[in-house]
Amino acid sequence: MTIVTAAILVIGDEILSGRTQDTNTNYIARWLNEIGIDLMEARVVTDVEADIVAALNALRARYTYVFTTGGIGPTHDDITAEAVAAVFGVPLGVDKEAYRRLEAHYGAADFTPARQRMARVPEGGILIDNPVSIAPGFQVGNVFVMAGVPKIMQAMLEHIRDRLQGGQTMLSNAVTIMAPESKMAGAIGDIQAANPNTAIGSYPFMEAQRFGCQIVVRARTQADIDKAIASVVAYADGEQFDYEKN
Amino acid sequence: MTIVTAAILVIGDEILSGRTQDTNTNYIARWLNEIGIDLMEARVVTDVEADIVAALNALRARYTYVFTTGGIGPTHDDITAEAVAAVFGVPLGVDKEAYRRLEAHYGAADFTPARQRMARVPEGGILIDNPVSIAPGFQVGNVFVMAGVPKIMQAMLEHIRDRLQGGQTMLSNAVTIMAPESKMAGAIGDIQAANPNTAIGSYPFMEAQRFGCQIVVRARTQADIDKAIASVVAYADGEQFDYEKN
Repeated sequence: MTIVTAAILVIGDEILSGRTQDTNTNYIARWLNEIGIDLMEARVVTDVEADIVAALNALRARYTYVFTTGGIGPTHDDITAEAVAAVFGVPLGVDKEAYRRLEAHYGAADFTPARQRMARVPEGGILIDNPVSIAPGFQVGNVFVMAGVPKIMQAMLEHIRDRLQGGQTMLSNAVTIMAPESKMAGAIGDIQAANPNTAIGSYPFMEAQRFGCQIVVRARTQADIDKAIASVVAYADGEQFDYEKN
Repeated sequence: MTIVTAAILVIGDEILSGRTQDTNTNYIARWLNEIGIDLMEARVVTDVEADIVAALNALRARYTYVFTTGGIGPTHDDITAEAVAAVFGVPLGVDKEAYRRLEAHYGAADFTPARQRMARVPEGGILIDNPVSIAPGFQVGNVFVMAGVPKIMQAMLEHIRDRLQGGQTMLSNAVTIMAPESKMAGAIGDIQAANPNTAIGSYPFMEAQRFGCQIVVRARTQADIDKAIASVVAYADGEQFDYEKN
């Protein structure tokens, strides 16, 4: 059974200042899950090259793939390309194909130095197409550098799908039980102990002043999931809790 | 000028699997900004003790404060208290006051072992009140351990407000310009260079097929912000771009 792992590095002061709610992590997490890649860690760092470099080095050594979002635009605070070049110890050059695409898009007269910045790719980088606004992302080693704008990032993900080696998909099913988590914790712990091939998570919530809890069962095979879910349902039935399988 | 920094550690498989969209980071980011604390980094890790410990050790050494969310409930996958005890090298004991509150809340007959788990606090920890569902968070050193459920986390933040030493607030103003970022990148870079006391960020977006860009100016004094914003507005006026100050 092949386990393939990944990390996300979100680059951008706007997330840390609270101005922008990051949604890319959640989108990438679900997308990776579908193709059998386990997201193991996510980080958000500021637009400071040393911080980006340190985070990339930690993550790329540990996980199969690293996906970055943000910092590849035309402005002075877009420094992801510099950071990735530093990480891999290669020069940051002008990629001819990226340059050609951008020049064709803007027209030679409007292809300003700021726009030319977006053609810079660390040596050896492989372009990631951007059908939305042309300026490409790029891959160096196991690091995939993408835009921060969600629509562009999502298009870039589709473009790299064939480059990624998926593993055994982590499947999941859930049961939402309308009872306080603390009431069922002992029983769920017992079910976890009896189902070692599963990872059972318990996520409490409040809805219209009522406490509920979603019990999520994750495993590599549906049979393992079904067995654990059946135990959760039998428990909820026994306690006469309202519940819903989802 | 006192600069106070912070990091957030989100603990939970449900964020990394994509099942749950994290909103706590954004909430805490905005809340910290208001009281003059700069959020410098955020991480999301799985429910694995070694990973929580490693992240906490990295973050608490580097930043003034660390805020964690998640993993302090009654179930088997709630292991944040264990991890924090390991980080500080102290025993994980039963906190008498937490035990008293929880027992009073559930009633002695229903105060099950799973619920008693929520009274465990690393030795020396200071409780963080939970007016919503009683089970407290706790502070050890510069680490503040809070629940993952947003409503509870938000109430806990209010409770610790007086324990935090704020610094010089990072102020910000923005101008949203309806033009492609790449068109204005050169000018904005020049304005950044002319305003070294500010951090100018440029955040492109798409809206109804039009490209726009929000230029955010951050600084410790309003005068520094006003000067840079005036330059951005003068530039937009000169180019006859639609814009809005916000």
